[in-house]
Amino acid sequence: MDFSSFLTSLITSFVIFVVLMALFTWLSGRPGNKVIYYSNRLLKGMDPSDGGSYASCSPFVWIREALSSSEQDVIKMSGVDTAVYFVFLSTVLGILALSGIVLLPVLLPVAATDDTPNKSLNTTSNGTFSDLDKFSMGYVPAYKHIAALRAAALMSPEVRAEQFVVLVRDIPPAPEGQTRKEQVDSYFKSIYPDTFYRSLIVTNNKEVNKIYKELEGCKKKLVRTETIYAESKTTGKPEGTRPTKKTSFLGLIGKKLDSIEYYSEKISELTPKLEAEQKATLRDKQQAAALVFFTSRVTAASAAQSLHATKLDTWNVMDAPRPHQVIWTNLTIKLFERQIRQYIIYVIVALTIFFCTIPITFVSAFMTLENLKIYLPFLKPIVNNAAIRTVLEAYLPQIALIVFLALLPKLLLFLSKLEGIPSQSHIERAASGKYFYFTVLNVFIGVTVGGTLFATFKTIEKNPNSLLTVLAASLPVNATFFLTYVALRTFVAYGLELSQIVPLIIFHLKKKYLCKTEAEIKEAWYPGDLGYATRVPGDMLIITITLCYSVIAPLIIPFGVVYFGLGWLILRNQALKVYVPSYESYGRMWPHMHMRILAALLLYQLTMFAYFGVKKFYYASFLVLLIILTLIFAYVCNKKFYRFFRDPALEVALHELKEMPHMERIFRTYVPPSLCSEKVEDDQFEDALSQVSRAGSFA
Amino acid sequence: MDFSSFLTSLITSFVIFVVLMALFTWLSGRPGNKVIYYSNRLLKGMDPSDGGSYASCSPFVWIREALSSSEQDVIKMSGVDTAVYFVFLSTVLGILALSGIVLLPVLLPVAATDDTPNKSLNTTSNGTFSDLDKFSMGYVPAYKHIAALRAAALMSPEVRAEQFVVLVRDIPPAPEGQTRKEQVDSYFKSIYPDTFYRSLIVTNNKEVNKIYKELEGCKKKLVRTETIYAESKTTGKPEGTRPTKKTSFLGLIGKKLDSIEYYSEKISELTPKLEAEQKATLRDKQQAAALVFFTSRVTAASAAQSLHATKLDTWNVMDAPRPHQVIWTNLTIKLFERQIRQYIIYVIVALTIFFCTIPITFVSAFMTLENLKIYLPFLKPIVNNAAIRTVLEAYLPQIALIVFLALLPKLLLFLSKLEGIPSQSHIERAASGKYFYFTVLNVFIGVTVGGTLFATFKTIEKNPNSLLTVLAASLPVNATFFLTYVALRTFVAYGLELSQIVPLIIFHLKKKYLCKTEAEIKEAWYPGDLGYATRVPGDMLIITITLCYSVIAPLIIPFGVVYFGLGWLILRNQALKVYVPSYESYGRMWPHMHMRILAALLLYQLTMFAYFGVKKFYYASFLVLLIILTLIFAYVCNKKFYRFFRDPALEVALHELKEMPHMERIFRTYVPPSLCSEKVEDDQFEDALSQVSRAGSFA
Repeated sequence: MDFSSFLTSLITSFVIFVVLMALFTWLSGRPGNKVIYYSNRLLKGMDPSDGGSYASCSPFVWIREALSSSEQDVIKMSGVDTAVYFVFLSTVLGILALSGIVLLPVLLPVAATDDTPNKSLNTTSNGTFSDLDKFSMGYVPAYKHIAALRAAALMSPEVRAEQFVVLVRDIPPAPEGQTRKEQVDSYFKSIYPDTFYRSLIVTNNKEVNKIYKELEGCKKKLVRTETIYAESKTTGKPEGTRPTKKTSFLGLIGKKLDSIEYYSEKISELTPKLEAEQKATLRDKQQAAALVFFTSRVTAASAAQSLHATKLDTWNVMDAPRPHQVIWTNLTIKLFERQIRQYIIYVIVALTIFFCTIPITFVSAFMTLENLKIYLPFLKPIVNNAAIRTVLEAYLPQIALIVFLALLPKLLLFLSKLEGIPSQSHIERAASGKYFYFTVLNVFIGVTVGGTLFATFKTIEKNPNSLLTVLAASLPVNATFFLTYVALRTFVAYGLELSQIVPLIIFHLKKKYLCKTEAEIKEAWYPGDLGYATRVPGDMLIITITLCYSVIAPLIIPFGVVYFGLGWLILRNQALKVYVPSYESYGRMWPHMHMRILAALLLYQLTMFAYFGVKKFYYASFLVLLIILTLIFAYVCNKKFYRFFRDPALEVALHELKEMPHMERIFRTYVPPSLCSEKVEDDQFEDALSQVSRAGSFA
Repeated sequence: MDFSSFLTSLITSFVIFVVLMALFTWLSGRPGNKVIYYSNRLLKGMDPSDGGSYASCSPFVWIREALSSSEQDVIKMSGVDTAVYFVFLSTVLGILALSGIVLLPVLLPVAATDDTPNKSLNTTSNGTFSDLDKFSMGYVPAYKHIAALRAAALMSPEVRAEQFVVLVRDIPPAPEGQTRKEQVDSYFKSIYPDTFYRSLIVTNNKEVNKIYKELEGCKKKLVRTETIYAESKTTGKPEGTRPTKKTSFLGLIGKKLDSIEYYSEKISELTPKLEAEQKATLRDKQQAAALVFFTSRVTAASAAQSLHATKLDTWNVMDAPRPHQVIWTNLTIKLFERQIRQYIIYVIVALTIFFCTIPITFVSAFMTLENLKIYLPFLKPIVNNAAIRTVLEAYLPQIALIVFLALLPKLLLFLSKLEGIPSQSHIERAASGKYFYFTVLNVFIGVTVGGTLFATFKTIEKNPNSLLTVLAASLPVNATFFLTYVALRTFVAYGLELSQIVPLIIFHLKKKYLCKTEAEIKEAWYPGDLGYATRVPGDMLIITITLCYSVIAPLIIPFGVVYFGLGWLILRNQALKVYVPSYESYGRMWPHMHMRILAALLLYQLTMFAYFGVKKFYYASFLVLLIILTLIFAYVCNKKFYRFFRDPALEVALHELKEMPHMERIFRTYVPPSLCSEKVEDDQFEDALSQVSRAGSFA
């Protein structure tokens, strides 16, 4: 890639960004779009124009707002996880910005004169080491800060249901003559006589969920049909034309029925069925897992960390996920099955990473023009056009790759869920880890070493030490490619992010053609979350690229700085106004981010070491010291802080609550909606009142 | 080594064994020796002739006694650790005996016809695999059995002080205006308001220990002097000749003093000094570690496993060692210092293992005849004799090796203690692990591959896979050597063990020339413990050798069987009658034994694999399956059982006690003897009574 085409690509990206910014300024001012641009505020019951941004559409307003927002604002609007993400962004930004300021004036001339490493490079690179070392030590405060954020959130006097609950798995078979519930209750009552409140046995909800879903669907459709009917009346159609529905095959054929009657009937038919199934589920479908509720946070925190039984594949206790993050179907998977699943998934992911060309090939094989004609017959006239055909044929493999990459996060989330992880936030962390390895290994190493990897594989096999040399030697070739890549990611991705063009278009289309009821409209604009599972690995890739290429192409540093600076700014706006977090893990993502930043740093040091080796700059061996220091630093951080991100610390759980916890309310938040019924007060839940009075005497 | 010399060595060993057995039969019958042969029974206040063995000196009596003793007898006489050791012995014995019965009839003829592997070998080796697999699966019951033994001991209704205590380390600096004790008390009182009893701050006892030791020494010497004086009176010497003592240089020069007066004066001088120092220590030398006492076993068990502070280098809580196992000086070492120490020790041990020739050379360099003449001048006439000189010069290197090997366990114990481990039993486990690696790597691999290791190192470097081939190829050469070694270990070591010749001689010498008082005599015969730290690695070496060589020299199996059978028998006798356990860890050694048996099995499978490879017997690749199975088995066992051996399970701590624990007595057991004084009721211990009354209301 020569300089002019590099410049062209850069300018194109920037122009796209400017256009998207302009679009944002224009669109966000229109009242009909406020549900897209201020969804988080609206959902929190705040006025979108709060702070004046809605009234004035100038871009400086939202930038000022983002810059002036404090960490506490972010926590209030979007939770601790989001605040942690911003600490991550600003830490990386700090590292890159400072290295840029220190190194660019010196390294740029050196890089320009190219492969004659001399004494001056020595001094500058030494400067690099110690500075970067200092920056990386800047993580300790960052780590401390995040641990404090987490502690503050967990110590909060607010009653948080999950702090009173532990998850019990691998319950052994109940003894003869005891129900599962009696077994669990007596076990925990004997160990925690003063603080045990009650237990909720996990049930097999497959059947009841199915009925519940059908019932809810019918209720929704009834509301929708009634709205249409009401509309049709107001628009002056004859009063008799009530909406109709056909009985079979997607409502296209069969007997015509009055829709409102049909759904009402269906609802009155399903309601008793649901109630019966709820009772049956609670009675007969109890599984070997339970949620146990305590009246004290300290007891719950301590129970979550303690070994209860002598055999580790029985009575496994851990801290409970938040109510809406619980993956019910995973709770009942047995210990060794979880282990086996985990290893199988690891193997599958490793195979996906190393042979990702195979699914891509598979996708491309499917996406031949012939197949398109068969499965998407309406494309036939387009495909038959010779000119379009040529273009399509040329681009199909790329499209296949894009499709594969678009599907990958979903696949990784699905695979992580299969591991048997009990909470949604943990699944996202696991998927994020997998995605990180995928991007770094495939995009970075794959594109860098490229097609030559298999050619050089024999060299590497003969002399494993040459791996780094090969890596370092291939760096210069790809430097421009990655400069372009970072620029593209910065301008186009963040431009799309800020302007929210895609969700906006989808919302307007849905609103116009599909949505009838208020609930449906709200569903259409309801925002997603920041999506750490894919966002963090994406950022990590940029860090890795920027650091590694800074050795040979220091110009990449400002691009990295712009990426993280712009990212911080735009995402701050989005976090404050648009996205609604779907879960809260109080910063449990941080240790992973931290480890991966250090991994990037290590890869950077290794690349530098190898590159200097290729350039025969032998003072580089001092770098080994730096590498060892990085490893020690990673070890110390992990040792010092990690366990607090895994286990609840007792001194944190100790803090006083604002009010007496309403235990029955806490219990209710954990009952799955499909089992929530006014009439299911008996059976499993029957002892609720007696328990309350019992526990009350200890409170 | 040809067959005749092998036979000679075998017969020699056996003859030594028979002689030692005869000696044992003769000596154990003599009343003066009963303190050596029945010390455990005597110390437990039992009649040594219990069961008739003392009256009749026939060897069959003790054998019958050993065979008829139950596991409960062993636990009663020698603790759970010893019972676990017997499970280990009998498990290994079972594996070897069964393989011997199954394999010998088939393998012996095959081994005789030597290097023509044919179909018959295939079947037999397959037999080997599946049988051994079955035997190794026999560990699961063994593991379960030991977990049950441990659980039973921990659930016992006896009050065990250590179950009410946790050890707290890395206490952060006390806030302004608070003493260390106030800080610890308020911290734990707030977390465990109902069950906290009191705390014992670890103090720097160096000074007070010194004074205490001096005082105790004086008291002992006073008793001794008085005994001598009383004796001299009875033997008719003039009444005036009281024992005297000179003031300086080992009592050889200086003013003559009356000993009894001198020691009495010294004692009355030291006693107030000790009291003053005790007070000063308790007040001013409080360290950043403490023992915290709870009134409930469940709370203590749960506290020992819970994370207390958000920062992991503060408030580290773990289960407390038993009172007499506490290594006080190690308690105050900070977390990261412990970590660093550990890694340094690991490096030192690794260097010792790989370069053990260096200290041996160092020892031999010191042990030249010239040095001997200088440092041990009385040897001069002997050394100057030409004949003896020649013999000595020839044997000195071997003697150096023996000296080194004799000092090694002490060195490893010393190194393990330096790691900062807080309990004696843990130190022994750590030392045992180090010793295991030392013996297996040095004795087994070292002797097997021998001097050729460095010669073949280049081959291995070029092709790492050839390591196993080299190992396998060198096996046959050394088979006879190891047969002899196992025989020697069996007959000579166990003969010495049973006959207790060495302790007996030492005891009689001491009794005759040194001991004056009853206490001194008791000290002279007081038995040691079984010494797992060196015994287990020794056994592990025999297992490794037997298993690995069984592939090419199946004859080694009966030797292994005899080793473990005889060992079981003789040690059973020793455990029941002689040794007194110095600590009790309730079988925490087992997971390590188990892992090392599996490691031996794995090494055996690898050797077999390599040996069959050398013999070009390609069906051996099925062995890979077996190796994978072994690894999975190890993983499952570890996952399922290990944590219970590390952490106290709550359901175990839950069981009811026979009596209300006397908390003050429990507290007192943990006060170091040098701080135990009738007068130190004030100061640190002042609040004892008030605490008791407070805790009493919750009990």
